[in-house]
Amino acid sequence: MSSTYGENLKLSIFGQSHGPAIGMTLDGIPAGLPVDLDQLQEFLNRRAPGQNDWSTPRKEEDRPEFLAGILDGYTCGAPIAAVIHNKNTRSGDYNSLKDVPRPGHADYTAEVKYGGFQDAAGGGHFSGRLTAPLCIAGGLCKQWLEEMGIRIGAHIVQIGSMDGEYFSLTNPELDKIGMFFPTLTAEAAETMQHTIAQAKEQLESVGGIIECAVTGLPAGLGEPMFGGVESRIAQIVYGIPAVKALEFGQGKSFAASCGSMANDPFIVENGEIRTETNNCGGILGGITNGMPVVFSVTVKPTPSIAKPQRSVNLKTMEEVTLEIKGRHDPCIVPRAVPVVEAAAAIAIFDLILGNSQTNRRK
Amino acid sequence: MSSTYGENLKLSIFGQSHGPAIGMTLDGIPAGLPVDLDQLQEFLNRRAPGQNDWSTPRKEEDRPEFLAGILDGYTCGAPIAAVIHNKNTRSGDYNSLKDVPRPGHADYTAEVKYGGFQDAAGGGHFSGRLTAPLCIAGGLCKQWLEEMGIRIGAHIVQIGSMDGEYFSLTNPELDKIGMFFPTLTAEAAETMQHTIAQAKEQLESVGGIIECAVTGLPAGLGEPMFGGVESRIAQIVYGIPAVKALEFGQGKSFAASCGSMANDPFIVENGEIRTETNNCGGILGGITNGMPVVFSVTVKPTPSIAKPQRSVNLKTMEEVTLEIKGRHDPCIVPRAVPVVEAAAAIAIFDLILGNSQTNRRK
Amino acid sequence: MSSTYGENLKLSIFGQSHGPAIGMTLDGIPAGLPVDLDQLQEFLNRRAPGQNDWSTPRKEEDRPEFLAGILDGYTCGAPIAAVIHNKNTRSGDYNSLKDVPRPGHADYTAEVKYGGFQDAAGGGHFSGRLTAPLCIAGGLCKQWLEEMGIRIGAHIVQIGSMDGEYFSLTNPELDKIGMFFPTLTAEAAETMQHTIAQAKEQLESVGGIIECAVTGLPAGLGEPMFGGVESRIAQIVYGIPAVKALEFGQGKSFAASCGSMANDPFIVENGEIRTETNNCGGILGGITNGMPVVFSVTVKPTPSIAKPQRSVNLKTMEEVTLEIKGRHDPCIVPRAVPVVEAAAAIAIFDLILGNSQTNRRK
Amino acid sequence: MSSTYGENLKLSIFGQSHGPAIGMTLDGIPAGLPVDLDQLQEFLNRRAPGQNDWSTPRKEEDRPEFLAGILDGYTCGAPIAAVIHNKNTRSGDYNSLKDVPRPGHADYTAEVKYGGFQDAAGGGHFSGRLTAPLCIAGGLCKQWLEEMGIRIGAHIVQIGSMDGEYFSLTNPELDKIGMFFPTLTAEAAETMQHTIAQAKEQLESVGGIIECAVTGLPAGLGEPMFGGVESRIAQIVYGIPAVKALEFGQGKSFAASCGSMANDPFIVENGEIRTETNNCGGILGGITNGMPVVFSVTVKPTPSIAKPQRSVNLKTMEEVTLEIKGRHDPCIVPRAVPVVEAAAAIAIFDLILGNSQTNRRK
Repeated sequence: MSSTYGENLKLSIFGQSHGPAIGMTLDGIPAGLPVDLDQLQEFLNRRAPGQNDWSTPRKEEDRPEFLAGILDGYTCGAPIAAVIHNKNTRSGDYNSLKDVPRPGHADYTAEVKYGGFQDAAGGGHFSGRLTAPLCIAGGLCKQWLEEMGIRIGAHIVQIGSMDGEYFSLTNPELDKIGMFFPTLTAEAAETMQHTIAQAKEQLESVGGIIECAVTGLPAGLGEPMFGGVESRIAQIVYGIPAVKALEFGQGKSFAASCGSMANDPFIVENGEIRTETNNCGGILGGITNGMPVVFSVTVKPTPSIAKPQRSVNLKTMEEVTLEIKGRHDPCIVPRAVPVVEAAAAIAIFDLILGNSQTNRRK
Repeated sequence: MSSTYGENLKLSIFGQSHGPAIGMTLDGIPAGLPVDLDQLQEFLNRRAPGQNDWSTPRKEEDRPEFLAGILDGYTCGAPIAAVIHNKNTRSGDYNSLKDVPRPGHADYTAEVKYGGFQDAAGGGHFSGRLTAPLCIAGGLCKQWLEEMGIRIGAHIVQIGSMDGEYFSLTNPELDKIGMFFPTLTAEAAETMQHTIAQAKEQLESVGGIIECAVTGLPAGLGEPMFGGVESRIAQIVYGIPAVKALEFGQGKSFAASCGSMANDPFIVENGEIRTETNNCGGILGGITNGMPVVFSVTVKPTPSIAKPQRSVNLKTMEEVTLEIKGRHDPCIVPRAVPVVEAAAAIAIFDLILGNSQTNRRK
Repeated sequence: MSSTYGENLKLSIFGQSHGPAIGMTLDGIPAGLPVDLDQLQEFLNRRAPGQNDWSTPRKEEDRPEFLAGILDGYTCGAPIAAVIHNKNTRSGDYNSLKDVPRPGHADYTAEVKYGGFQDAAGGGHFSGRLTAPLCIAGGLCKQWLEEMGIRIGAHIVQIGSMDGEYFSLTNPELDKIGMFFPTLTAEAAETMQHTIAQAKEQLESVGGIIECAVTGLPAGLGEPMFGGVESRIAQIVYGIPAVKALEFGQGKSFAASCGSMANDPFIVENGEIRTETNNCGGILGGITNGMPVVFSVTVKPTPSIAKPQRSVNLKTMEEVTLEIKGRHDPCIVPRAVPVVEAAAAIAIFDLILGNSQTNRRK
Repeated sequence: MSSTYGENLKLSIFGQSHGPAIGMTLDGIPAGLPVDLDQLQEFLNRRAPGQNDWSTPRKEEDRPEFLAGILDGYTCGAPIAAVIHNKNTRSGDYNSLKDVPRPGHADYTAEVKYGGFQDAAGGGHFSGRLTAPLCIAGGLCKQWLEEMGIRIGAHIVQIGSMDGEYFSLTNPELDKIGMFFPTLTAEAAETMQHTIAQAKEQLESVGGIIECAVTGLPAGLGEPMFGGVESRIAQIVYGIPAVKALEFGQGKSFAASCGSMANDPFIVENGEIRTETNNCGGILGGITNGMPVVFSVTVKPTPSIAKPQRSVNLKTMEEVTLEIKGRHDPCIVPRAVPVVEAAAAIAIFDLILGNSQTNRRK
């Protein structure tokens, strides 16, 4: 099994970069949930390329066609299916990717795994393009969560060596995220864009860190052990190409902390239980405690760079120098921001669907 | 669903800290795999408490009784079941944990989730004690992987602010891991133990970072997207209590890197494809590339500390000061090392069981 | 995967006939459900052997020990685990079953599947004894369903060529089922017992048909296609050894019917929608319609008979005559009645746990 | 969850009768399997309506468009996705089906389950039309099985009260199945077609029984208990609309049999183990024994009939007389024959994918 996610919903993603279409099916969604297709399109546009200086100019519209599961603006209980038809389908010769795998891409591992039968064009099923159907599913889940008062927002906290401001863990201000370039401050946006532009000039690429917060969650969400909120978010987030690290709350800083600093004291605020700090990122024992869930994700630099790289011709077993033609994003991080939101939305909505089971008697 | 893991095997973990027994069932294991119970016991002893200065003196033997699935030293194809009977069962009054939740523990989230019906004694099903059955399953998988030439080793790279040496990503030397205290150098072991002893004196606890490497893996293991090696490892590793960050290869350092530094060039070595560096931690597109899989895990400081802490009495909704009685590990990291190995072993063995499907024609 | 069932709960059954213990884990059960262990024991006793003339005199007590998941008479949200320790463990030489497989049993298929590593004693994991843990899980689910007003009752409608009365499909009278021998009339009980006694005298065995009804179900339970009530019941019922046919409602008689006779007209009764007949057995499109769910199950004759039978010595590949020693049930049908109820209870409770998702807006 | 099937492959079916498209995704299929689209189309045509007197004249072409997973005539390892665009999309007013549910259809249960949000047109997601994507997946699996020497054939053994010949259980002659009307003898075909024509004249419909055989299977396929071949086939077969009974081997006749007649003696034939009879339908303990797997399926009469029927107006709660307009198959059984083959093919191929795990050491 592979491109399928979910315990209570079942998300199935299909398609190859240059195949006829990419798409998704989403099963297990209750009937009667409203769907706002315009709002979904706006969300998808945040991921789309070709909108600015630092992303690839290939103009995909990423306009999903819904084939099933939605009727008159509401989910109808049947599985939801949507496709995005590819316009730039197979034209050139992509067999070279089979022969000379690009460093940092899945060309080589796909070749080994599928024995030469894989669709190598543009990375095939491993292409970042497959995050578009993920965003269809995630954009829908995000709408349904918002209806329940649950909001999700992600922003960039680091590009290359340039840091931006992090959320307050106890009170992440989602509304402060910039519209055009998603950071908490205009300054950070500027320096980060500059870093990206520089990388482009140098025929290079840069990585970064995205922070995501979920507010308005009820306490008690998640299951023990492998069904915990961290496990569920981790499984889907690591399904996003180029993600190589994931931290919850204080994350890696916990290592150098001590118990009295790390623990979040319980307090009463307006008659409700809260914690004074939120180092744990809203999750204790895998279960939400009612505080914001906050996590951050490290994205590696785009593997496609214009600089010559060393690789091997798999047919001749000779070491060769590879030059990747075409234009590529010098930094994938800005476009990954809505993808991280989508992943979080799917994971959280899946947990909410399952949550009804846990406590019947309360 | 909750305490169940696996796509091709099914691991189910049960038990509460002070219940009659904890245990696991492991279904989907092929018949005819040898089982060395002495070697398993040695592995379990690495996790057991009470063996040194810095861990809790509660003496549990953690000796599993196998109820099913093993016959005459081999798996017999039927589900494997094993239990560890608890000796320290419910004695004192644990209802106070329901009333006044310990900061950093799952007491409060369990109370909300299970509406007061949870087994609160010693953390119940959320107790670190549940990692013992995880180690039974993982210890078995580790043996079977070793038979195939796949080795797994973890060690401590940070305790509090004290750093130790990291593995070479291209050539992790598992044999250099210390037996008594698992670090790569004796110096690191000493300073880390000192840090733990200090924390104990100060009625505090410390966190740390564990690095784990898997060597001898074939290329081509893993599935695309949510079935990738990172996703599968992440799901189980985040099921270990107190884990709050997970990084693969260069991990978080990727953010400040650039494409030409981050990508691992393909080379030919002894007629085989390898990569010159291994920044990606042996995984491209979720699939192994034949290089060592290396990841690191951040463990937060033990939440149970002797220092007084602030909490709330859930019945009266008054803020109170909580003092946790009894002895507790000032640092859980050393005992978590075999648990991380166990989790990795289960994830990898599960992937190997599924791998036979991917490429029939090659 | 194998001995695992459920979409919303996860039932895992383990054990071999003559191993140290058999048992089950049941994960995904809400906290706070009451558990009546005496009532459970009564239910298990209905399956236990040695209680009368026609069943094997091996006296097993089948008294489950609960290791986890239940606290002070209520489920606590953690996975439930229970074991039954075997008293008659491995004594004789069972290797002969590997060499000369018994016709009608799984000895041969297990040998092929597990390559000689299987536990052959008493049928190992394929033994009918494994229905005891199924009855633990099912007995619990039955209690929880009864709390919701959902009742399940099964009885025997045929033994050999002797027919008994069937339920009224619209109004199955569960209270009319005989306590000692589960039929609707005393006459049927008598003739069926006579048939069993006769089979025993003739060193033979007989099969039969069990009918099961579930009353008090809400309409709207089940999922479309492969998640329908029939599919879910079928998967678990065919997991009971010796079941070879399964029919819903009119079942096989539908073949010779016509549309106007087969369809169940909708009517209004006491202001509620009902159907006048219930040929469909309470299920339309896989979803309950609020009428009783009624199905029947054909059980083949016990394969173990005292008469000599023809088999093959797998080592020498010679055809041989096999005589099965020991006492065996001449008819397994009466003891299978509670097992069918258990299977139905588990399937229905699983569907109810999932049902909360389907319609949020109504 | 609902319209998803499979343990080792994941089949997901989507679409509503009158929606824009119906389709399926099929994940977990190895790379490098050949795909013959012409042969697939021939298979699909067997299910298509409008080809003869007794089926509905609505002309659908049921020509699948493959969006993903197939490249240059071979599977490429990525999930397979295919759609069939609907030509007869929503035109008339189907709200009447919500108000006055058709007896025998899922109109009422869908209304209750989805609270009025369901797509009622033509039965929506519950329509028999959804068996077309099932046949896409099944047609592919059938091809791949044939490559391994595993053949699947189904035929009609009963229409109304007219019986045809059954397969020999030990040697089902798949090649004797009629091309035009799938029975073993031309006589049976004639009388059955006559029965269907009669039903049509009388504004009625008839049911029937389909028998299906799988030959060339290896012994050792299937998993114990709920993963047995019977359970796996049952789950998918009961996902076909109108199936109400399922029998394996002798099926229901086992009830009146006795042990010595029911058991299949093992014999040696050409140096191989076989059974002399095949009453068990090739399955012992849920595992194949190398003999043909044979099962039969009862299909209820088409619920849509021209005769007036009684129903209830759900809005007014008045009992009304319903007349179903349009043309409908007086007998769905002939068109269900390839659907049963498809279901069997999917179940068997899924089991084969998982089978590699069971015995590594043999």
